[in-house]
Amino acid sequence: MYIVPYLRPVKNVIVFGAGRSSLYLVEYLGDYCASREWQLLVCDKDITYAQQHARINSETQFISIDIFDTEKVSRLIENSLMVVSLLPAALHIHIAELCLQYKKDLATASYISDEMKALDEAVKNGGLIFLNEIGLDPGIDHLSAMQMMDVIRADGGDITGFESYCGGLVADENDGDNPWKYKFSWNPRNVVLAGQGGPAQYLESGKLKLVPYHQLFRHVETFGIEGYGTLEGYPNRDSLKYIELYGLKHVGQMIRGTLRKQGYCKTWQIFVDLGLTDDSTVLEFPEHASFSEWINTYLPAVDMDMRENLQQYTKASESDIGKLNWLGLFGDQKLPITKGTSAQILEEVLKQKWHLNDEDKDLVVMLHRIRYRKEGVGYIHQATMVLKGESNTHTAMAKTVGLPLAIACKLILENRIKSRGVIAPVMKEIYEPVLVELKTFGITFSEKRV
Amino acid sequence: MYIVPYLRPVKNVIVFGAGRSSLYLVEYLGDYCASREWQLLVCDKDITYAQQHARINSETQFISIDIFDTEKVSRLIENSLMVVSLLPAALHIHIAELCLQYKKDLATASYISDEMKALDEAVKNGGLIFLNEIGLDPGIDHLSAMQMMDVIRADGGDITGFESYCGGLVADENDGDNPWKYKFSWNPRNVVLAGQGGPAQYLESGKLKLVPYHQLFRHVETFGIEGYGTLEGYPNRDSLKYIELYGLKHVGQMIRGTLRKQGYCKTWQIFVDLGLTDDSTVLEFPEHASFSEWINTYLPAVDMDMRENLQQYTKASESDIGKLNWLGLFGDQKLPITKGTSAQILEEVLKQKWHLNDEDKDLVVMLHRIRYRKEGVGYIHQATMVLKGESNTHTAMAKTVGLPLAIACKLILENRIKSRGVIAPVMKEIYEPVLVELKTFGITFSEKRV
Repeated sequence: MYIVPYLRPVKNVIVFGAGRSSLYLVEYLGDYCASREWQLLVCDKDITYAQQHARINSETQFISIDIFDTEKVSRLIENSLMVVSLLPAALHIHIAELCLQYKKDLATASYISDEMKALDEAVKNGGLIFLNEIGLDPGIDHLSAMQMMDVIRADGGDITGFESYCGGLVADENDGDNPWKYKFSWNPRNVVLAGQGGPAQYLESGKLKLVPYHQLFRHVETFGIEGYGTLEGYPNRDSLKYIELYGLKHVGQMIRGTLRKQGYCKTWQIFVDLGLTDDSTVLEFPEHASFSEWINTYLPAVDMDMRENLQQYTKASESDIGKLNWLGLFGDQKLPITKGTSAQILEEVLKQKWHLNDEDKDLVVMLHRIRYRKEGVGYIHQATMVLKGESNTHTAMAKTVGLPLAIACKLILENRIKSRGVIAPVMKEIYEPVLVELKTFGITFSEKRV
Repeated sequence: MYIVPYLRPVKNVIVFGAGRSSLYLVEYLGDYCASREWQLLVCDKDITYAQQHARINSETQFISIDIFDTEKVSRLIENSLMVVSLLPAALHIHIAELCLQYKKDLATASYISDEMKALDEAVKNGGLIFLNEIGLDPGIDHLSAMQMMDVIRADGGDITGFESYCGGLVADENDGDNPWKYKFSWNPRNVVLAGQGGPAQYLESGKLKLVPYHQLFRHVETFGIEGYGTLEGYPNRDSLKYIELYGLKHVGQMIRGTLRKQGYCKTWQIFVDLGLTDDSTVLEFPEHASFSEWINTYLPAVDMDMRENLQQYTKASESDIGKLNWLGLFGDQKLPITKGTSAQILEEVLKQKWHLNDEDKDLVVMLHRIRYRKEGVGYIHQATMVLKGESNTHTAMAKTVGLPLAIACKLILENRIKSRGVIAPVMKEIYEPVLVELKTFGITFSEKRV
């Protein structure tokens, strides 16, 4: 029998969002709530994924709810101990405003938006914590980098450069015949639109560098990761704001980026060159339009074999052509959707080929390179975190996004965080206990001075 | 003595906008109004340009007004016979809504926006005319193309393709040492941002073609114009919607584009490649930052001569480098503005070098190529309009934008247009009388069948 949860006289923790990233968080917070005789309420429009795949106890309830039903959402928040939002980033602000109204703490794994930042004063005045950026990236990057840099600084080091790269990949043994060596372990739409929020900004040799979106995947650095071969990384968003967040004053280098296996970026750049990642213009193809019809729309009208035309137009190599061909882009197969932006069509095409199979395990890789000077000598502190998923649902991505967030919630619920306001987890009172506990789950960095 | 115009018991025609494109319109409508004992009221925030440069009569009044002062604007419109808007395109809707409220006809030289289109039903119900797209391009292109195509169709021709290109250029003898062979004869901001409203769309060999902005200036066609050498054209916006507007059913080709002198597009593409036309991200350089500091922001951080770095990165030719160097981009000169988007900085840099000098005359070129079949045989009807400006204020641009609009206003004021609603000038009742009168001003096409 279903009992309306907010009428029960128990204490509730509310999680909004029951998608792929929620499993470990739901399990951790479910166990934790049960141990304190609280309830965990997991709320989303579609709750089936988490309900089917998470290991749950009797104190974990799933509630199917329309997030825009403000009346219901308000009642849930009003009767909660605190709130977690795993919803798409644009929806956090809706939840945040209600948390402010009902004076509840909030935690998310997303970047602090300008709208969220604007609440800082009010959140502080309410004596509340709105903790954001505490997933994987942003999240574990902040926690680990701040710890390492605080140690270096305490030891008399002066930090001169910071690089941090992270990627959600697939285990090498599950690459199969996929020449991209990439599968979706998180939101496919975000992968397709990656980089489209204005030029990437970073600091290199003391100079500001800007990379427009249409050049982004040409700006690749390569990194050797022990035991995992060579990966490549492209710059991610505006890295400059982390100079202040991390308390770095004299750095001549500040760059954050995204990792892929080798060769991915060069071929992805062809999608960008052609215009296939455009999300602004809705196209409407005939009902039976094929992959090749879609691609030809972006190629010059010349009397030439399609592959040759694409090769001349984009300077694609044989290896690029192989990757595009593997996706079926030159073929007669019917498009999965015929109305939508090219980015939406591309997402559907990639979802057919880049989904994690039952036996697939994902791979999360994070890399920091911290440059510093001590007693006149320059050093590089390099740290690597590599984690393989347990299954195609209990992914390394879900684990590294969900556990830092869940552990931080425990700290908030136990009143062990003194900071107030809209914050990112760069303070010792957060990074230290979270990193200690993450280690017990196998999430740890191997560090060396090079 | 200044008498508040809307208190006078005279009949007024209102022009909003007193910028560069207004001179011929103000002169034509000023004479026309005076001949009917009406007044022409020219209203803008800054009225000095038109006031100083237009030949005006005693019945033409200039009113400095804040366009957002709805109360004042409403009184002006309420007491008018009809309204012309030469304001920036985004402001037309504000004027249009007031015209609807006070039941006044409106004319503009701008593309019909979605917001404007949405007024169509209400405008029709009010028995009003909101005539748009009656300047140069859009404007004379519609008038002339529709006349030519109606003649071809009446003669039994079946139109199979349509190309139309137009450019606002500078007379060859005024190119001087400027290797771009381009100067601003209209809004510099629009030139800098040209092409940024989503991919260009056109029809070629019966197939839809899409060109993303970052490839636009690579998609160049060349055209020989008798007596004016070779020009080049790149595709402009969404050409597909003109298929319906022009009543073309069987065309396999529909492309509208913008003309430049040879070599311009290839070097402009370097601006796009670098990211210099980005208008989304506000940059803040040190107060004494130089041109080269700005450009280096967009170049890879390598230890290399700047020109060489740019050449390697963008595949720039010696001729491209020459054009960039002529603008001073590799030099120590102080940036004209240090805070703004790169597009804003670029605009200021170009304004210093691309302004029309006192002795300069501009050049307007329009070209149509209409493909048709008649009795099984294919033909191309080619038409060219070339007009040189009279001076650096009485430009060909101001003439070709202002006169069609002014003549159309006369037709509206004399109740010679029967169409109602939000319309573009594709009907004979408009194109015929306007083209006849434009001929008396030397605006005429030379046509041939090739």
